[in-house]
Formats: sequence, C-alpha cells, structure tokens
Amino acid sequence: MKKAKKVELDTGLSADDLKNLVDEYKKIVKKHAKKDFPQDPVDQMWGATNAVFGSWMNDRAIKYRQINEIKNVKGTAVNIQSMVFGNFGDDSGTGVCFSRDPSTGINKFYGEYLMNAQGEDVVAGIRTPEKIATLEKKNKKVYDQLVAIKDRLENHFKDMQDLEFTVQQGELFILQTRSGKRAGAAAVKCAVDMVAEKLITKEEAILRVSPDHLDQLLHPMIDPKAFKTAKALTKGLNASPGAACGRIVFTAKDAEEWNAKGEKVVLVRKDTSPEDIGGMVVSEGILTSTGGMTSHAAVVARGMGTPCVAGAKGVSVQGKKVVIGGTSFKEGDWITIDGSTGNVYGEKLSLIVPSISKDMSLFLSWCDEVRDASVRGDITGFKVRTNADQPEDVKRAFDFGADGVGLCRTEHMFFEKEKLIHFRAMILADNIDERKAALKKILPLQKKDFFGIFKAMNGRPVTIRLLDPPLHEFVPHTKAEIAEVAAHLNVSVKDLQPKIDRLHESNPMLGHRGCRLAVTYPEIYDMQVEAIALAAVDCLKKKIPVHPEIMIPIVCDERELAMIRPNSETIIKNVMTKAKVEIPVRIGTMIEVPRAALLADKIAEYADFFSFGTNDLTQMTFAFSRDDVASFMPSYLEKNILEVDPFKSIDEEGVGMLIDIAVKKGRGMKGDFKVGICGEHGGDPQTIDFCYRAGLSYVSCSPFRVPLARLAGAQAVIRNASAKK
Amino acid sequence: MKKAKKVELDTGLSADDLKNLVDEYKKIVKKHAKKDFPQDPVDQMWGATNAVFGSWMNDRAIKYRQINEIKNVKGTAVNIQSMVFGNFGDDSGTGVCFSRDPSTGINKFYGEYLMNAQGEDVVAGIRTPEKIATLEKKNKKVYDQLVAIKDRLENHFKDMQDLEFTVQQGELFILQTRSGKRAGAAAVKCAVDMVAEKLITKEEAILRVSPDHLDQLLHPMIDPKAFKTAKALTKGLNASPGAACGRIVFTAKDAEEWNAKGEKVVLVRKDTSPEDIGGMVVSEGILTSTGGMTSHAAVVARGMGTPCVAGAKGVSVQGKKVVIGGTSFKEGDWITIDGSTGNVYGEKLSLIVPSISKDMSLFLSWCDEVRDASVRGDITGFKVRTNADQPEDVKRAFDFGADGVGLCRTEHMFFEKEKLIHFRAMILADNIDERKAALKKILPLQKKDFFGIFKAMNGRPVTIRLLDPPLHEFVPHTKAEIAEVAAHLNVSVKDLQPKIDRLHESNPMLGHRGCRLAVTYPEIYDMQVEAIALAAVDCLKKKIPVHPEIMIPIVCDERELAMIRPNSETIIKNVMTKAKVEIPVRIGTMIEVPRAALLADKIAEYADFFSFGTNDLTQMTFAFSRDDVASFMPSYLEKNILEVDPFKSIDEEGVGMLIDIAVKKGRGMKGDFKVGICGEHGGDPQTIDFCYRAGLSYVSCSPFRVPLARLAGAQAVIRNASAKK
Repeated sequence: MKKAKKVELDTGLSADDLKNLVDEYKKIVKKHAKKDFPQDPVDQMWGATNAVFGSWMNDRAIKYRQINEIKNVKGTAVNIQSMVFGNFGDDSGTGVCFSRDPSTGINKFYGEYLMNAQGEDVVAGIRTPEKIATLEKKNKKVYDQLVAIKDRLENHFKDMQDLEFTVQQGELFILQTRSGKRAGAAAVKCAVDMVAEKLITKEEAILRVSPDHLDQLLHPMIDPKAFKTAKALTKGLNASPGAACGRIVFTAKDAEEWNAKGEKVVLVRKDTSPEDIGGMVVSEGILTSTGGMTSHAAVVARGMGTPCVAGAKGVSVQGKKVVIGGTSFKEGDWITIDGSTGNVYGEKLSLIVPSISKDMSLFLSWCDEVRDASVRGDITGFKVRTNADQPEDVKRAFDFGADGVGLCRTEHMFFEKEKLIHFRAMILADNIDERKAALKKILPLQKKDFFGIFKAMNGRPVTIRLLDPPLHEFVPHTKAEIAEVAAHLNVSVKDLQPKIDRLHESNPMLGHRGCRLAVTYPEIYDMQVEAIALAAVDCLKKKIPVHPEIMIPIVCDERELAMIRPNSETIIKNVMTKAKVEIPVRIGTMIEVPRAALLADKIAEYADFFSFGTNDLTQMTFAFSRDDVASFMPSYLEKNILEVDPFKSIDEEGVGMLIDIAVKKGRGMKGDFKVGICGEHGGDPQTIDFCYRAGLSYVSCSPFRVPLARLAGAQAVIRNASAKK
Repeated sequence: MKKAKKVELDTGLSADDLKNLVDEYKKIVKKHAKKDFPQDPVDQMWGATNAVFGSWMNDRAIKYRQINEIKNVKGTAVNIQSMVFGNFGDDSGTGVCFSRDPSTGINKFYGEYLMNAQGEDVVAGIRTPEKIATLEKKNKKVYDQLVAIKDRLENHFKDMQDLEFTVQQGELFILQTRSGKRAGAAAVKCAVDMVAEKLITKEEAILRVSPDHLDQLLHPMIDPKAFKTAKALTKGLNASPGAACGRIVFTAKDAEEWNAKGEKVVLVRKDTSPEDIGGMVVSEGILTSTGGMTSHAAVVARGMGTPCVAGAKGVSVQGKKVVIGGTSFKEGDWITIDGSTGNVYGEKLSLIVPSISKDMSLFLSWCDEVRDASVRGDITGFKVRTNADQPEDVKRAFDFGADGVGLCRTEHMFFEKEKLIHFRAMILADNIDERKAALKKILPLQKKDFFGIFKAMNGRPVTIRLLDPPLHEFVPHTKAEIAEVAAHLNVSVKDLQPKIDRLHESNPMLGHRGCRLAVTYPEIYDMQVEAIALAAVDCLKKKIPVHPEIMIPIVCDERELAMIRPNSETIIKNVMTKAKVEIPVRIGTMIEVPRAALLADKIAEYADFFSFGTNDLTQMTFAFSRDDVASFMPSYLEKNILEVDPFKSIDEEGVGMLIDIAVKKGRGMKGDFKVGICGEHGGDPQTIDFCYRAGLSYVSCSPFRVPLARLAGAQAVIRNASAKK
C-alpha cells in the first residue's frame, strides 16, 4: 500500500475491511499470469476508484445531469468489490440483458453478449455482440441459470430488469440489476402487460410510465440510426416537442409558397409574430434565434403540435441567409430540428412517426379513473382541459381525451384575413360610432368561430377568454398593410400614421390589454359576449349540447369585474330572452396579475371561477419578460440561481405562494368554486403535481399535451395519496 | 304646499318640524311687502332646497371633487333655516371675513362687505366690496360685535376662521364659520404664531399645515392676478410641481442653444429619454404629450425640481411644430406650464417665486423632533432621506434637511459624455477582456462620482444602488453615435449593428436589468463596489466622515444575493486592507419584484437592509407599465375603478399588502433591521402615512420634496398616535 498516503479517498470501509479487500484482490491476481496484471494490483484498485470518483465531473456526466435536471447532489459513491473476469478464455464471457424488450416492451428475454470479453468490449461496439438466445446453445446451463435469475429478479422488483452478467470460466455472476430504461412504447406495454399478469396494480402501472414516455409517442422523432453520423450544429430551447425536417424558409410568405409547391419547410426566424401564423401552420417545424419557452413561436408551435426550437443563440439570421453554429445556409437548404432536445442538424435526417396504441388508450383510461375518483377536501376529481382556439384543435383535444376547453383565446381569431381588416379599423377608429360599425362586421364572424368550437366540444365546458391582445400586435406594419387599412378607413396614410404610432407601447406586456380594453372601449367585450350567447343559442337550436364559460383577462381589481360582469349578464339575458331559451353562462376571471392573487377574496365576489394564467403571473412575479429572458436565463440556470426555468415548471416558492393565497382567499369567499390553470405550465408534469396539491380543479394544456396531462394528473393523485400515508 | 307632491326630497325633517319651518318662513314673509317675494314662499323654499341638492352634480362641484380627490361620497346635505336679509336698506349689509390674513397669515382682521346687499353680490364681483376696517366707522356697534365674535370663534376653534355675516336692519347675524382656507405662507405663519400665542400645541400646529402648502412655498407659481385673463389651452398630468414660462423648443440640442443665447425655454416633446438630460437641465419646464407620472420626463424633472406637465393628450408634436389644444405653436413661441395643476397656457404669464421663511425653518424643526421621538415597537424614529445622483442634488437635499441619501442611482452617471463611450464599449463588448478593459476606464470616474456624493452628505448614510439600466437605453441610436462607438471599438458599423439589435428588448421593464447584469457580467458590479470602497477610503483620508451603503436592485431570489454579496465583501475587504482602514459598508437589497416581497425572509438572510422600490413594485403588482398607463389610467380614475393613480399614492390594498408581508418576513428573520422606501412614492403624503404605519424606518424622496416629507412624516406620527388613543 505504498501509494496509499498519496490517495485521499473516503471509501467508507474500515481499515480491516480495506485490508481484507486488498488481500482478496491479491489472491485473485496470484492465480493468473503476471502479464494480465502489468500494474501493481493495489495501485490499480486505487486508480480505478479514483477514476470512478473523477467520472462525476466528466463532460458526459455533467451533461447527463443537466439534461435530467439532477441538481444539488454532492457526488457519486463508489462500491469496491472483487472482480470477475469474462476474458479468461472461451468458457468466459460477458453480456447485458433485459427481462423484456426495452424498445417494444414485448415480454421476451432480450440481450447481447460476447464470449471471452469484458463489459467494455460489449459496450464499446468494437466487436459485434451476439443475441442472447444463442447463449442457450453455447452453454445451456448458464443460459437456464440466467433466465431463472432474470425471472426471479423481475418478480422480485416487479419491473422490467436491465442485468449485467459475466461468466468466469463457466460460472455465472450477476454484476448488477436495475429497472431497465425503456422507450415510450415499451413503457406503456410493460405497464399494461404487468397489470394483466397481476404483477403490479393499476396505480403502480401508472407510476411506471413517465410523461416524457407519452410525449415521445405523440410526436415524430429522429430515427435513432441517424444519430450515428448526425452531429448537432447548435442547440436551442426544446420549445415544442417532436422532430421536423424540411427546407429552410425565412418568411411566412415563403413558407406558404414553398408549401404550395409541395415542399416541406422549416421556418427559420429571429422571432415570430402573430402575422406569421399562416406560414407557421404550413411549416414542419420552427426555429428561432431569440425568445424563451413562452415566446410567441414556442406557444403557438406547442398549440399546433409543431416541433419548435426557440432562442437558439447559435443561429444568426441575416436577410435570406442563416448561420447555424458557424455553417451558412440559404433558402431551400435542408435542416432537421429536434424540438424535444433543442438540437439543430444541418441536414435531412429520417424521422420516425409513432402511432397511438390500444394499450395506450387502456392505460390512459386508468389514469382518468384515478383522477375522477380523487378527493381533496370538498373537491372531487382533477380534470384535464385544453387550450385551443380553432375547431380543429378543439376536435383534436377532444380526441385526445380533454374534459373541456380551459382556454379559448379570441385574439388569434382576429388574425384571419377576413376579420383583420375590420379589427384594425376598430382599434384605429376615431370615435365610438366608427368602432361600433367595425365591431358589427366582426360579430357574425366571431359567432361562427364560437359555434365551431362549441360543436367540437359537444357539451363539455368551453372557457372563452375575451380579447387580450397587446393592441400593437394588430397594428399594420408594412407600407402595403398601412395603405390597405387607410383605404378601408377612407383616410390618408399620413393621417393614419400618428394613430398607429400612438398605439406603440414601451412594455406591451404591462400595457393596454385584457379587461383594460373593456374599461376604455366597453363595446369590444359587448360584441364578444353577444357572439358567445348567439352561438350558444344556435347550438341549442341544432340540438348540440353547449356549456359556455366567459373569462375576463388581466383583472387587477374587483371593480373591473364589477363593471364588466353586469354589462355582460344583461347582453346574455337579452339574447336568451329574444331566443326564448335559457343557457347558463358562467363568468369568471383569470388570475394572472399578482394584485389579483393578493386580493382574490374581493375578486371572487364577482367571479364564478378562477383560472390561473401562469405565464403572465410568472412574468409579473419575477419581473421576467418571457420574450427577453433568453439573455440571462441560461446564466441563472447554469449558476444554479434558479433550479428550473420558471416558464417551464411553475415556481412553487414564489408564484406558487400567490396561487396558494388566491385559492385560499377565493374559496374562503365562495366555498368550493372552480379553480383551474390555463398557462403553458398546465402541460408540465411537475406543475400538474403542484396544481393537484394546491387544490386546483383542473389543468388546461395544449391539445398535444392532453394525454401527458391525463397521466401526470393521475400520478399526482397517487403520489400525494401515498405521501399522506 | 301645493307642489309638495311633485318634489321628492328627503329633508331629514319630521312632518311636524317641516310644518313649523314653513310657518316660520311664512311669518317672515308676511312682515314684508309682496313685491319682495314674487314667488310663492313655499315653492321658493323647495326650489332653493332642490337647487342645493342639484348643485352636487354641477360641473364646478364635480371638478372640485376631482381636484381634491373626494370620492365615494353619496351627496350633499341641505340645512334649511330661516333667512336673514342684507338687502333691506342701508342699515343692512353682508360680508365675508377672516380672523387672520389668509394670504400672509398675519394676525389682523381681514374681510370685505357690502351694505344693502346679499351674499351673492359680494361673491359675484359686480359691486366692489369695501374693506372690513371701514365698517367700524359705518356701524361701530356691529363692528365691535363682529370683532368680539371672531375672537371668540378663533379661540374656540383654535384656528383661523372664515366667517360669513349679514346685518339685517342693524342686527348682526353670523351665517357660518369654518376654518379658513389659506395660502402656504399663511398656513405656516398661522401655525407658528398660534404656538407662540399658546393657542395650540406644536403637534396641532403640525397638523394645520398641509404638505401641499409647503410644496407651494418651494416652487414658483403663476401670479394669481394672471389667472383673471389667462385660459388654459389643455391639461396634462401635474408631473413635477411649480410653474415655468419660456420659449418653446423641441429638442434637447435646441434647448441648449437657446439657453446659451440667454433665452428661457420650455422643452416640448412627445417624451424624453436619458439622452435629453442636457436639454432638460437648462429648460425652465418640460411638457410631454405621452407618459405618466413616472415617465422619464416626470421622474427626472421632479429630481431636478423642474416643473413638468406630462402625458398631455391635447398636445401633438410634429417635427418643429406643436398643436396645443387646437392652437399651433412653433419654436420660439412663449408658453407657460403649471406643473402643480397640469395646465398649459399659450402665452407668457408672470410668475411668483416664494422664499423660505424663518417660520418655516422653525416649523420643520418641530416636525423633525416629532419624527425623531416616534416609537413603533422596537423602531425609534422615522427618517427622511433623498433620492439624488449628483453632488449638487445631494447638497440641495442636505440643505433641505435630508437625513441621508436613500437612493443614489448610478445609471444616470453613465450618461455623461466622458463615461458614455466607455459604457457603450462595455455593453457591446465581445468578451470579458474587452468588457474589463472598458470598465477599467470607468472605475476612476465612478470613484470621483461617489466621492462627491459622500462629501456632500458629510457622514450621513448614502445608499448607492448598483447599476440598474435597461441596457438598451444606453445603446447608440443615431448613425453618428453608432459610427462613434464603432470607431472607438475599432469595428465596422456593419459588425456593430447586430450587437446593438441583440440588446433590443420587447419589454425592457421586465428584461435584462438590475442584478441580472451581475449574474451575467459580474465584473460590472465588481467595478462599482471597488469604486465605492475607494471613494470611502479617500474621504477618510481627507477627514470627511463617510457612511456608505450598497444596494442591489431587481432581486427576485436570495441566491442572487448569495452570489453577489460575498463577492462584493471580498472586494471591499481588499481595498480596506490595502488602505489599512476599516469602514463598515452595509449591503442591502431593493424589494421591487413581487417575488422578493413574498420571499423576504429568505432574502433577509443575505441583506443588511431592505428598500422598497415602489415604482417597479407597483408596475409588477398591477402589471401596469408606467410609460404606457396614460392610455387607460384616465378611464380607470374616471370610472372609479381606481380611486387614485397608484404611481402617485401607494396602493395600500395590493402593493401595500406585499410591503407588509416583506416587512414582517424580513424583520421576522433579522429583528429590527432597517427598511425604507425609495420609489417616487416616498414624497407622497398619503404614502408616507402608510410607510409609517407599515413600520418603515425611513422614506426617501427627491430633494425638492424633502421638506414636505419632513412634515408629512411628522403628521403621520401624530395622526397614528391619536388614532391609537
């Protein structure tokens, strides 16, 4: 032990144990030829131990911890044990095996091995390992032993096992066993099969599938084979999951043109704005160089289920050229983006599009049972709604199992060409009459929008949020647009320009938006409420069940609601009276301004329900602009000031405190009234767990996240029930 | 009573009382000739009563309530009493008098009257009333009676009285008495005199002078005589008090040029930006068409004590022309603005510049005694500090009686030409070395800034806030500026432009600012901390007492402080060790982000003090951008959704709740540590009262508000002490 002084390791062993270990090791060494152990065995052991300790800080380990968000852990432990050798001749060997197929989940022994080899040889890929089935012929005794052990281990741990084994001169050693990592499809299949095999309960099955597994199954992904050669040029934020491959285009218009020619395109931009919607819809994927997880591009992409990599700092767009991680690309060049990892590849990669299985349907129905049966105090059930603005999105969410629409934004509806011109006329109107004239033209179009959504949800609750745009987003920007609006309004461009300028805001996120519009221009919400009531009446006439809810955004004081609510009720009553029907319409409010959370008891007096707009609530609580965080968020995460991007998973400490305050104050005033969440966080598993604990009645997320939320919600129910026990 | 059925009034009288009253009235009428009462007497009474009730809603009354912020009152009461007549001949008359002079406060009977006239005749100004002294000759008995009554009333009410009287056929009737409205100078003189006369206590004297009175005495005002003909063209926000008169200029450069020629100018702009500072300094007043009470123009003007009318919607600037309330003006035309009322006049009006009296000094010293002696739990005293960035401002605040500097912003220091180029080089640097090189050049200049401020405060505490700019404010805008910076950095304009673009933010208020800069670029704060320590050492060497405090802005998580604080402490220690001195430097934090208030207990662990940045806290809590509220705030006030602009007086309900939470949590962690306020609210009397109740150790306000805050603070102490009793 001559070098022991130099090495300072806390092995956790007593001096005696350490001595025994070294002696044991020396005995093994003695059995063999000197050439097998050119190094001093003790040196070698210390060296290996040191290397394991050192591996904690190697690049791969650091990266792994980053990806898996493993933080605040102090280091790794090292187990020291005597070694067995798979390279002592042809009666020796080593292998890795799974008790079921980790790709498909099929209950079939799966694995690989190499004779006369050590573990490294199997993993390194220098020699091609053999299929485990062939071991039966080579050494039936060992094979049978191995099968018996894996069966016993799987039965013991009640989960699919990943085993490493070594055969040393005919004798089988199991080096380790652990629950096997598996692909999404395998996770669902294993879970469903094991329930059928009575190995685990439904609750256990639900905890076995991670939300990420489901996410994989709902989005295209890059063919794993492609990774062998493909190298990412840069990495941005994994803003909307799934992989996309297409030709680069730089404008929404180009996207539409290339798409019309039958080409697949990826829209590459600095950022996107609502006017890009047309181009975003036809793109396979979206790549932006700025913006965070809740930038316009990210939010819209997630809503549409379109893969998106956002805020990729290594991407620099200049005109119709883009430099990605140092390589230049032009319009029409192929790229592939992976919205699940944030990676960007400068080539065409093949994609895999998985399909939804019967197993998954069954599995999700168990999740629904668990959520529906959950009880927290007076609150029964924990629902999953969706954020969707268009009938086709609502339909998709319905198919994915959404219990209702938690957030139907009305501002996107106005970006349709037909409505946009009238909307622009409205916001640029000089007086109330001009504004009312423009709104009158929008009314029948809005009514049609709402009818389509009610129909798609077929009687499930639909929460429609009244207009909440930063007005300037709707302002015409280009010369052509300004000329068009001027012509429509019958004014000169020169007269129009100052009005447009007046709508500019320094901080639109904190500007003239939400119900503030209804305070200054009540006629806008009046029109929307009338359209909702008329659409509901139409549904009823066509025997379509309908359950409308109206939601007022950006409320900061109860007097806003005290003004807007009675006004809306009168409009609804007039429509219903005229149509001689009665459809209950609940009127609630968003809680997304810190003041609204703090004064939730007062606000609850005028609201039938709350829905937390956690994007805005996070923005205001942190004073973080979601469009601007990209400049400092990476440093905050890297330097461990924040453990996770608060736009991804809710900040339980701060934003969560406001939510808790609001739920308590709101329910304190109104008993068990409905409280939900409709921010982007509604689709995040960690946040869903928090929402369950906070007593929320439902979460609402984008259609593609609905299955994941159904699972995460059920997991929250089970986890928190067992945490209580 | 034939018309009684038509009139529905709740007179508050019983049927019997009403009958008696009418009978009494009829008796009076009977005594006189029919021609004096052409109307039916009962009709007349009902008519008059109705008119009084109706007067509640006339334009003047509504305006009065708006100006005086009288809200949520249900209406007026009407006293019905029998009438006396001053127009029954030359032995009758009527008048209005004050027990002391309401303009100067001098203790001399003051008033006017008219013989054979009713009250209306005196007030209406058709006949010229006579001085009260002449009444002695006309009717000594009545005069002596009147003097005796006014003495008795003043002694009884212990305040200067405003009396209305009528003499009916030689008999004196007092119609009403009330505490007399008085000018600022009179208020102070009355208060000081009455203490000397032992009529009232010092505490009572303090409550007799309103903060607005003091404000009048510290700013020029429009000569009241000028109001007889002058008519305001439009009205904006009363953003910085005092009146200013000068020639219109439209750019900061023009302001400097006209000023250099010896002309007085008023800077008229859409809004101002930090680059306009030079022109703002030389202007008599500032008028902007956009922005609220805390827009750049308003904040800077208040800091400099320059009158400012902001957000005047009736003002429309186009190039070098401006339309004010429909009238066009060009460069060089005279205007007068009144920053105390928000009025804008299209002509040259004469101004009165009051001086500070000995009485005021004495009066304020009483205020200081009261504040210094106040006790709330463990906290003794309630201090007044100032927000000042330049030695001359600090000196002025010191002269006005400030107990220290509560907020020394460092960002304005960088706008000086000498520093700006290096600062721009710093924020546009490509790497840490370039950034450090630029900072090295700024260090000695910053040290000089801090030295000047320490010296001006002469040992009183000076809280220096480390850099908190929205970076983009410092970005070069014009071609010339960009070219200058490019040359300085030795790069091409083409290469510089993308870097400038990258600094653009969608919502700079929620962007890369405050301590976020220190997380991404620690070397900036390092330089500032070193400059502070070096300046403190220099002071000590020159025997100037020094008391520096460092304040970290925009903190939202304790880990920001946990990172910045030890770093700063090391730098300070190094400087002190090298200089072989020891100067304690406390390091505290702003509480201006809602999350910081919510998690104040955790943050207090790393802070020696808190200071509430209520501008930002109000912005985030309401989600109101102070630069954009002008588009909806007027509607919010008009429709009574908000009772007062929360950027003017603190919103006690919401923002105040966060302050209460933070004070409780902070003190819960640290005992009686120092908590102050340094937002613009620190100079608002209502807010000062709240701050006292909330347990704050001090308020900090702009130099010109310091005397007002000394008074308002003392009033808070007295009012809340008596409220407790």
